[in-house]
Amino acid sequence: MNKINKEITSRDNDFAKWYTDVVKAAKLASYSNVKGCIVIEPRGYAIWENIQHVLDTEFKKTGHTNVYMPLLIPENLMKKEGELINGFAPEVAWVTEGGNKKLEERMCVRPTSETLFSDYFHNTVKSYRDLPLKYNQWCSVFRWEKETRPFLRSREFLWQEGHTIHETQKEAETEAHLMHKIYKEFFENYLAIPVITGVKTEKEKFAGAEYSLTIEALMYNGVALQSGTSHYFGQKFAKAYDIKFSDRENNLSYVYQTSWGVTTRMIGALIMVHSDDYGLVLPPKIAPVKVNIVPIKESEEVDNFIENLKKKFDKENITYEVLDSDKSAGFKFAESEVNGVPIRIDIGPRDLANNIVTLTRRDTREKIEVNTKYNDLVVVCNTLLKTIQSDMYDRALERRNSLTFEAHNFSEVKEIMDKQPGFIKAMWCGDADCEAKMKEIKGLKSRCIVDENPIDSKCCVCGKDAKKLVYWGIQY
Amino acid sequence: MNKINKEITSRDNDFAKWYTDVVKAAKLASYSNVKGCIVIEPRGYAIWENIQHVLDTEFKKTGHTNVYMPLLIPENLMKKEGELINGFAPEVAWVTEGGNKKLEERMCVRPTSETLFSDYFHNTVKSYRDLPLKYNQWCSVFRWEKETRPFLRSREFLWQEGHTIHETQKEAETEAHLMHKIYKEFFENYLAIPVITGVKTEKEKFAGAEYSLTIEALMYNGVALQSGTSHYFGQKFAKAYDIKFSDRENNLSYVYQTSWGVTTRMIGALIMVHSDDYGLVLPPKIAPVKVNIVPIKESEEVDNFIENLKKKFDKENITYEVLDSDKSAGFKFAESEVNGVPIRIDIGPRDLANNIVTLTRRDTREKIEVNTKYNDLVVVCNTLLKTIQSDMYDRALERRNSLTFEAHNFSEVKEIMDKQPGFIKAMWCGDADCEAKMKEIKGLKSRCIVDENPIDSKCCVCGKDAKKLVYWGIQY
Repeated sequence: MNKINKEITSRDNDFAKWYTDVVKAAKLASYSNVKGCIVIEPRGYAIWENIQHVLDTEFKKTGHTNVYMPLLIPENLMKKEGELINGFAPEVAWVTEGGNKKLEERMCVRPTSETLFSDYFHNTVKSYRDLPLKYNQWCSVFRWEKETRPFLRSREFLWQEGHTIHETQKEAETEAHLMHKIYKEFFENYLAIPVITGVKTEKEKFAGAEYSLTIEALMYNGVALQSGTSHYFGQKFAKAYDIKFSDRENNLSYVYQTSWGVTTRMIGALIMVHSDDYGLVLPPKIAPVKVNIVPIKESEEVDNFIENLKKKFDKENITYEVLDSDKSAGFKFAESEVNGVPIRIDIGPRDLANNIVTLTRRDTREKIEVNTKYNDLVVVCNTLLKTIQSDMYDRALERRNSLTFEAHNFSEVKEIMDKQPGFIKAMWCGDADCEAKMKEIKGLKSRCIVDENPIDSKCCVCGKDAKKLVYWGIQY
Repeated sequence: MNKINKEITSRDNDFAKWYTDVVKAAKLASYSNVKGCIVIEPRGYAIWENIQHVLDTEFKKTGHTNVYMPLLIPENLMKKEGELINGFAPEVAWVTEGGNKKLEERMCVRPTSETLFSDYFHNTVKSYRDLPLKYNQWCSVFRWEKETRPFLRSREFLWQEGHTIHETQKEAETEAHLMHKIYKEFFENYLAIPVITGVKTEKEKFAGAEYSLTIEALMYNGVALQSGTSHYFGQKFAKAYDIKFSDRENNLSYVYQTSWGVTTRMIGALIMVHSDDYGLVLPPKIAPVKVNIVPIKESEEVDNFIENLKKKFDKENITYEVLDSDKSAGFKFAESEVNGVPIRIDIGPRDLANNIVTLTRRDTREKIEVNTKYNDLVVVCNTLLKTIQSDMYDRALERRNSLTFEAHNFSEVKEIMDKQPGFIKAMWCGDADCEAKMKEIKGLKSRCIVDENPIDSKCCVCGKDAKKLVYWGIQY
C-alpha cells in the first residue's frame, strides 16, 4: 500500500474511523468551523451533481417541474399543522434578528418545506383544472443534530424535496408510489445498492403523513440506512393550510398531497456499501471520472497513444483524467484507488511496443492486459464499466443477503444481534409496545413493513397473532 | 388584446407596475408569506436552470469546480476581515437559537461566502503545488433588504459565487478579468443584453476588494442595473484568514484571491430590457420553450402534422409546447405572448390543405406564412430563432444608445436627467466629494470607470483636471 491509502483505517477494525478516513482521503468533504456542518469538496460535489442529473431527468420525465421556496419560515406558518412542528421543533435553527433589529416573529431555517408549499398551494389553486401541481426543489435544509457524521447526519444537508397536490386520493397515492419506485430503481440501477421497500410504522413515519414509503439499505457493517422516503399526506396539510379547489361537481374540496425526498446521505451510502481499505469505490454510472490514464514513462509513443485515446473517450462521452504529474507511478495508482475511479489504464513504452496496455478494475483490483491490436480499447472499457456496475450490485446484494436473518421470537432476535447486526425479518402484531420492546436490543428499530409472505403467524415479541412482516435494524 | 394580457399595465404609463404585472402574468414568481422573499415558480425557475446550464458549462471549461459551503457563518469567523462585516452587518439575518437552546455565539445566514471560503482555504492550502484553487457554488444568500422587488432585490436570492486563490497577483487579476469577460459575453450572446464594462469606484466597490469589475446594463426605462461583478482581493482576506503557502523559493507567502457572482436578478434584467405590454419576451437561447404549437381546429390532418413536427423538433433539440387545451385560440395566442415563447406556429386545416402554416414572432409580433411544400419548417424555425436572438440584441443596443448621453458639466447632467434617465457619460476627477455631489441629481451613482477615450479634460462636477471617464446612472 502506498502512503496515501495507508492512512485509511482498516474497515474491519474500526468501521466508523474507516468511514471518515475514506471521506477525507478521497477528498469528498471536510469539516468546517461551523459546528456540525461540512464543506462538500469538488470530488464529493461532483458525485452529487451526477446524482442530481439522473434524478432531475427522471423527475421531469414524470411531469415534475422545479421551483424555489424561501429559506426561512415564520413561526406561525410553521405551526399551522401541529404534527410537523412537533416533529421538528427540537431541531430547528431560529432567526431572531435581521437588519440590526429583533424580529417581531422569529423564523426558522427550513428543516423541510411542506409548510411553504402548502401556503403556496393555498394561494394558487382554484379549480380542478389547476391540478395536479407536481413540484420539486433542490436546496439545503437545516436540522440541529447533536451527533454528526459527514454526509450521513449533519446539521445542514443538500436534498431534493418533491411536493405535489392532486384532485383525488388515488392520484396522490399513485404519485407517492411512483416516486418510491423511482428511488428504488435509482438506488439499484445507478448506485448499485439493493434496497428493501416498504411502509414505515406509525411510530417511524414522517410527522404529519398518513403513511410513509421508504427504501432501506444495509451498510457493509450491517447497520441500516433509511435512504429515501415518499409520503402520502391525504388531506392533512390541505385542511391545516386550507388548500381547496372547486371540483368537477363545482363543490369546494381539499386536495390530496404528497412529498418525497432524497439527500446527500446517498453519498454516505455509496461509501458504506461499496468502498474498501484502499479508499472509495464508485459504481461507474455515478462516478464523475470513469477512467484514469497513467503514463508509466514519458515517450512520444505513449503521448501519442494517450492523445488518440482521449479523443476516442471524448467522442464516447467517457470521462477520464490523465495522471501526468511528476509524482511516482505508485503514488498515482494509490491516488486512483483512493478516489474510486472505476478503471485505471497504465500505458508504458515497453508494453506499448507489444500493443499491450494494462487495465485495473477498482472494484476487484484485478489487472487485465489488453492487446490493442485486436481490441478496441474504448469498447473494452465500455464493456468493463458495465460489468463493474453489475458486479458491484451483485456483491452488495450478496452481502446484504448474508446479513439478513429471520427470527421467530424475541430470544432469536437477541441471539442474532449479539453475533452481528443486520436486517432482522420478523413478524409483528402491530402494537407500539412490541415495537418499543425491540429497541431494547441494541436499539433495534422497525425499518419497514414489507409486502412479502409471512414467515410465521405470531408476533416475535408478544407471541400474539401477527400478519405484518417487518424488517428491523439498527440505524444511522 | 385578450384578457390574459389586458391585465398588464402599459409599460409607458407605469413601469414599476408593468414589471410586476409581467412577473405575475408570465408566472415567473409570486409573493410569499415570508416578508421580502419570493417563490420562484416553474416558468421562472426554468429560465434560471437555462442560465445555470450555460454558465456552469463555461465555468467548468475554464477549470472551475463546484463545491458547497455551510449556510450559517459564526459571528467571529464573519468578523475576521473588518471591511466585509462592516459592509454587510446592517443587512444580515442572525440565528440565535438552535435545538431549543440559545446559542453561545450567534451565526448569520450567509450574505456572501468569502469568509467561509477563506477559512477553508486556510485549512487546505500548503504548497504552491496546491494552487490555484478555483471553486464555485450555486446557492441562495440572504440580505435583509428593506424595499424589495421580485428578482431585482429580494431578501433571499439565488446566485453563483466563484472563489479562487492563486500563487501570483498576475494570475489572480487575470482570473478576475476572465470571469468579467465571461459575464459580458453571456449577457450579450445569451441574454441579448448589451453591457458597459468597467471598474467600480472606491465608494461603489465590494466591501473588502482591492477593486471590483462590473457589467452594467440599462433597462428600458433608462435605469441602470449592476448585473455581475468580479472582485480582485489582493492579499486582504489572505492576511485576515492567514491563507499561506510555501512558494517556489520555499518561503511562506499569502495567496492572491478573487470572487465573482451573478444572481437571479438577471431574470429581472431580461424582463426590463426586452419585454413589452403583451408580456414577457425572451431571447431564444435562454427561453425554456422555443416554440408554441397551436392547433387552430381539430382534424386528423392537423394532428398528424403536429405529431410529425414534434418528432422533428425532438430530433433537433428544439423545445416546444403544444397548446391543445379546450381554451379558445385567442386565449392561447395571448398565453403564448405572455409567456414570451419566441415563435408561435398556428396550424389550421384550411391553411394546411394549401400547405400553409403561420409563424408569429413574439419579439415583433410579425406573422410569417410558410409554405411547407417548399420549406422545411424546422429549418425555418431554427433560422428564425437566430434572427430573433440577434434582432433582440440590436434593439436593446439601439435603445441603450438612445438613452446614453454625454455631459460636460454639472448643469448639463441636470438638464439631461430632468428629461429622461439614462447612462450619463461624464469625466470625473476621482474625488469622492464630486461623486457624492452627483448623487444630488436624482440619486445618480457612478456605474463604472470605463477604458474609453476621454470626452473632456475637466471633471463634470468641480471642473478640475480629470482623466477618468465614468458612466453614471440611477440604479435598481
